[in-house]
Amino acid sequence: MSRLKLGMVGGGEGAFIGGVHRMAARLDGRWDLVAGAFSSDGARSRAFGQSLGLDDERCYGDWQAMATAEAARPDPIDAVAMVTPNHMHHGPARAFLKAGIAVICDKPLTTTLADALDLEAAVQRTGLPFVLTHNYSGYAMVRQMRAMVDAGVLGAVRVVQAEYAQDWLARDLSGNKQADWRSDPERAGAGGALGDIATHAYHLAAFVTGERAEAVSAETSRFVPGRRLDDDVQLRLRWASGARGQLWASQVAIGVANGLRLRIYGEKAALEWAQEEPDLLRFARLGEAPLLMRRGGPGLAPDAEAASRIPAGHPEGYLEGFAQIYADAADLIAAHKAGHSAPASLLPTVSDGVDGLRFIAACVASAAADGRWTPLNEEAR
Amino acid sequence: MSRLKLGMVGGGEGAFIGGVHRMAARLDGRWDLVAGAFSSDGARSRAFGQSLGLDDERCYGDWQAMATAEAARPDPIDAVAMVTPNHMHHGPARAFLKAGIAVICDKPLTTTLADALDLEAAVQRTGLPFVLTHNYSGYAMVRQMRAMVDAGVLGAVRVVQAEYAQDWLARDLSGNKQADWRSDPERAGAGGALGDIATHAYHLAAFVTGERAEAVSAETSRFVPGRRLDDDVQLRLRWASGARGQLWASQVAIGVANGLRLRIYGEKAALEWAQEEPDLLRFARLGEAPLLMRRGGPGLAPDAEAASRIPAGHPEGYLEGFAQIYADAADLIAAHKAGHSAPASLLPTVSDGVDGLRFIAACVASAAADGRWTPLNEEAR
Amino acid sequence: MSRLKLGMVGGGEGAFIGGVHRMAARLDGRWDLVAGAFSSDGARSRAFGQSLGLDDERCYGDWQAMATAEAARPDPIDAVAMVTPNHMHHGPARAFLKAGIAVICDKPLTTTLADALDLEAAVQRTGLPFVLTHNYSGYAMVRQMRAMVDAGVLGAVRVVQAEYAQDWLARDLSGNKQADWRSDPERAGAGGALGDIATHAYHLAAFVTGERAEAVSAETSRFVPGRRLDDDVQLRLRWASGARGQLWASQVAIGVANGLRLRIYGEKAALEWAQEEPDLLRFARLGEAPLLMRRGGPGLAPDAEAASRIPAGHPEGYLEGFAQIYADAADLIAAHKAGHSAPASLLPTVSDGVDGLRFIAACVASAAADGRWTPLNEEAR
Amino acid sequence: MSRLKLGMVGGGEGAFIGGVHRMAARLDGRWDLVAGAFSSDGARSRAFGQSLGLDDERCYGDWQAMATAEAARPDPIDAVAMVTPNHMHHGPARAFLKAGIAVICDKPLTTTLADALDLEAAVQRTGLPFVLTHNYSGYAMVRQMRAMVDAGVLGAVRVVQAEYAQDWLARDLSGNKQADWRSDPERAGAGGALGDIATHAYHLAAFVTGERAEAVSAETSRFVPGRRLDDDVQLRLRWASGARGQLWASQVAIGVANGLRLRIYGEKAALEWAQEEPDLLRFARLGEAPLLMRRGGPGLAPDAEAASRIPAGHPEGYLEGFAQIYADAADLIAAHKAGHSAPASLLPTVSDGVDGLRFIAACVASAAADGRWTPLNEEAR
Repeated sequence: MSRLKLGMVGGGEGAFIGGVHRMAARLDGRWDLVAGAFSSDGARSRAFGQSLGLDDERCYGDWQAMATAEAARPDPIDAVAMVTPNHMHHGPARAFLKAGIAVICDKPLTTTLADALDLEAAVQRTGLPFVLTHNYSGYAMVRQMRAMVDAGVLGAVRVVQAEYAQDWLARDLSGNKQADWRSDPERAGAGGALGDIATHAYHLAAFVTGERAEAVSAETSRFVPGRRLDDDVQLRLRWASGARGQLWASQVAIGVANGLRLRIYGEKAALEWAQEEPDLLRFARLGEAPLLMRRGGPGLAPDAEAASRIPAGHPEGYLEGFAQIYADAADLIAAHKAGHSAPASLLPTVSDGVDGLRFIAACVASAAADGRWTPLNEEAR
Repeated sequence: MSRLKLGMVGGGEGAFIGGVHRMAARLDGRWDLVAGAFSSDGARSRAFGQSLGLDDERCYGDWQAMATAEAARPDPIDAVAMVTPNHMHHGPARAFLKAGIAVICDKPLTTTLADALDLEAAVQRTGLPFVLTHNYSGYAMVRQMRAMVDAGVLGAVRVVQAEYAQDWLARDLSGNKQADWRSDPERAGAGGALGDIATHAYHLAAFVTGERAEAVSAETSRFVPGRRLDDDVQLRLRWASGARGQLWASQVAIGVANGLRLRIYGEKAALEWAQEEPDLLRFARLGEAPLLMRRGGPGLAPDAEAASRIPAGHPEGYLEGFAQIYADAADLIAAHKAGHSAPASLLPTVSDGVDGLRFIAACVASAAADGRWTPLNEEAR
Repeated sequence: MSRLKLGMVGGGEGAFIGGVHRMAARLDGRWDLVAGAFSSDGARSRAFGQSLGLDDERCYGDWQAMATAEAARPDPIDAVAMVTPNHMHHGPARAFLKAGIAVICDKPLTTTLADALDLEAAVQRTGLPFVLTHNYSGYAMVRQMRAMVDAGVLGAVRVVQAEYAQDWLARDLSGNKQADWRSDPERAGAGGALGDIATHAYHLAAFVTGERAEAVSAETSRFVPGRRLDDDVQLRLRWASGARGQLWASQVAIGVANGLRLRIYGEKAALEWAQEEPDLLRFARLGEAPLLMRRGGPGLAPDAEAASRIPAGHPEGYLEGFAQIYADAADLIAAHKAGHSAPASLLPTVSDGVDGLRFIAACVASAAADGRWTPLNEEAR
Repeated sequence: MSRLKLGMVGGGEGAFIGGVHRMAARLDGRWDLVAGAFSSDGARSRAFGQSLGLDDERCYGDWQAMATAEAARPDPIDAVAMVTPNHMHHGPARAFLKAGIAVICDKPLTTTLADALDLEAAVQRTGLPFVLTHNYSGYAMVRQMRAMVDAGVLGAVRVVQAEYAQDWLARDLSGNKQADWRSDPERAGAGGALGDIATHAYHLAAFVTGERAEAVSAETSRFVPGRRLDDDVQLRLRWASGARGQLWASQVAIGVANGLRLRIYGEKAALEWAQEEPDLLRFARLGEAPLLMRRGGPGLAPDAEAASRIPAGHPEGYLEGFAQIYADAADLIAAHKAGHSAPASLLPTVSDGVDGLRFIAACVASAAADGRWTPLNEEAR
């Protein structure tokens, strides 16, 4: 398999998600990190790049300079990973697309729906690969769920229950770098827990069911005094097929570490999955004893097999799921580079990112209107 | 401890909850079942009573006759258990109260709020003990949760997540006696899953938090074709203290047997409990590793200790929780009989039943108004 | 169903297992407790009997007097429950058998194998029903396991892993009534944890597999200073069919409440069950995803259905399993009383008790011989 | 942090553990794989090396040639990973040590104790770093357990229960490459399940308790007809401190994927850990409710913190635990290369490998002597 060159914007000293992207990119051996704008301070960017073994000349203090310089090289990066706070996705991503470089972008896509639509247009214009790291869709058993729903194993979906609870913001964390930008509307956008984690839960449900939500009725709360964005959101969704469901995202759920959970009930069968034990999937058919399916175990769909590295019982985790996104992105971008048509892909796209911003916007609007049912694509009319 | 005499209305051949009440009443040895109107057919009532070892003369084919006859005896029943379908609670309960006999009534209290208020007034008028069998409040660890919230261990409650999922109505069960009356508005009232199980989840949350909900935003569904009452309900509650929460009740959740679950997140700590493993309680304090508390184990409040029969690890279950209601009812009714003032009690009351009917009514109204926030006590204004 | 009269020896103030027997006997409404020798002090026995609502004249201070008096009554007890410490099983049981009264006896059967064999002979001589309360065999899912093994679902059994861990004796409990007799060789017999809980685990494995062990290699420990009997025993068993397995019983396993657990691996399938969540059974067929079977759920054998009271998801626990022994005993004893032939029964017998004493004796002998493989029926040669 | 150069012997097409080592080496970015003898067929070795992006000239068909050539280069590998079947550890490892190259070797160390002692001597002679990949010791929560035992949190250890069950060899797998060499005494050594997985469980227990076993009483079985080495082993261990424990390793445990599990009971507290959910650790203090500790969560020791990459609730798995061994090995080998003294390390050593072979030899001897207690260091006398 071909090996590709990766650049990175953001992810320097003290960042969380940058390190995750680097581990994910390394795990399957498809990417070499060769360039980066790790900091807006050139010296700090270079120092950090050196610690990763990068050449000084490819450590930039400015993403615009990086886009320009990389595009001009005979050996440019094949893709750039955007691991900055939300407000720093749109500008840099647009610049790299303009420079002809594929983008792997953290979520949510942007801070505003307008920016998201602008990026979507840029992707369509340039025809470049664009991958949104809704990383939970990389888990083997999440793909198993999608395959089962798609194959009709559940029959028509009736109820979709999604939740994403955490507790790290249950108290005031002012001064914590990760907390600060996530609760700052300027940098995070209109959603707190909404943008940071509810979008993951929403994308997960949409990915698995193959549907999008049509409307939302939401309530948002700011439980911690002084918090500027929601730290808890409770909502109901009406899905395109007629399915109904709730979604809860909270960053004040004490004792819950990273409780992303999806339960889907169809007319013939049901699935239950929890991110904290991602190798397992509970599958129940009406009138039969539930099955405990396991990554690497019997009865899996090809998409799940393909996203598995090691035998059953040797647990894969968060980094493996994230790595799957990078492995698939390598396939996608290598094919594009080679002039081949894009391979079939389960990767989240820029349009999923637009849908995520529509979700955020509709939730904010619904919450402001006391929970009024609000269509997700209202702006389109 | 004094031993009391119990009568029963309903609960004959083929009934489910009647047998449960009998086992619950027997377990702790506080009650003797001595009379019953098990069927509206006198011969069947007698035959059934004989199978339980009752005297023929105390097996009635008519609850009105039973109330009259028992009240006239020198050794009348001390209480009557009402285990009929919902529409058959109000009339009989009222008759027994009028006859001076205490009532232990299954939930929901009645099929209409008007009937519920009427019963509440009858209870106030007569001063008789009236117990509503929201049996899940009899579990030791549910009482432990209540004690912890009450003691301020959680601080102010922020989020209350309640759910009650089952799968037994995931398909059309026409012809099944238990299913038929539960989905018949004449006999069940305005709620299907709403009356049958959502009221349990709502009462559980209210019992544990010591609060009532002020308003609800609900959506109800009838997923199984031909079903006349809701088989899935999804709602949000605004609690008196400012807490927010969701509640989900479903009878189409394939693979879930009896998934009543409560999670409460406060500003200092959180609790998680699931009915299918009722002896356990997960307790997490902010910034500390969660504790796994257990009925019979260390660290329990007196109310939890008092509701425990056997050592930790010897699981108590549904019948023991239900039996606790009967044991507490024996204390309450014996005290009344002896002319003592009522002991402190955790028993659900007729007013909890009224609150349940308000909950049902508000949910139905909200769902009809596309999820509009609806106060629970609207009728009172 | 007929209702029977029960007497009790032991189980007065401060006892543990006596109360359990009474609840178990009450739950299914098949027994009325009418007589007892609750204490060797007649006044205390009477006072305790009064608290249970018994007639004074049937409260005895002497089990021999009770046996004689009850046998002479026109309405004698139909069976006596023996809930005394181990050393007080043999004498009273023998006396009641001699008086023509059936016996329901706690385990282990006696303190010596000789006494056990003597009781077995007395049972054979009198032809009276004798039930040993290895209560865990009353759980529905334990009976389900037995039915599956018996039906050949597992194929030949290869490995049997049994354990029974507790922590209540992890420290010196001198002065605690329950602890004192259990660690006193005079009252408990040759085994501490061995007699109290290892015999349960051994019977469970034997019950489910339908086999007996041929030989044992054991090591016993007394971890708590001053303890006079083993508080931890680790052993291997060779089963008649060629299966191999380990058994661990411990009363010093901190953090384990009542961890009785059985895992059986055959050539075609396997079963895993844990007493702390007794309604569940994990069933795995070679090459297939494991199933999570549940009491009251789909796919159960008639023996499991018959031992179930309430629907799936409404947990049954320890008392229900124990009650099943009493319900089955009622069938057995009522049939005997009516002169009918004994119904098919899963009840543990006096011979199971003899096998338990052989198990204890062989373990003690093996441990004394540094773990030498020791046949269970050595004395018989 | 410095970046090191890795070579590999074995691990070509169709191998399992080679790929694991490569992912583990890549994850933390401390190693570059630059050379390999992936096959004894030079062309196949080159083809495989090319697929990994290696230079042709560093792809060898002969490990002896590789050792010689690499040692002669100006830029030799810093370490070689030995990922061959067991019988191919000793010769190559010795050759690389002789060539002055550090070794990272899969387990068990060798097929005979003599070979193991010979390797230990070679390591002592050369002073080179030697790491044995008992990878489970790389899990953060395993290190947490070790730290807690070491800090005296448990008090004196009383009982150590270890098990490692799998089901992949529950049927005859002749023709399967992975199964074939593992059940061939020539290539696997004297142990089947014993060498492949029991050694892992034994090392885990020894690592966590900081002890070695003094003697073993074992029984081995070959359940699948035609199998040449044990597929199930059941044993008891006497630990140096006086602790007692059982160990079970099985490859015929249907329905168990990779059930490595350790439970340690001390006089003051206890720990329970299972590899299939490696981020969790159950910790119980006598008389207190058990705690559920979590990687990345509160209350962890520095050694556990240092072995963690991502926040709590984002599960780390098998590859991360394995990667920790490679990350620590990088520290160790970089220090050696720089002439610094060896850093404090939790890495399994060649002496742990010798202990593992002693364990295997003693188990085989004990099983052959009907379970006679056999010292682990018998040969030393």
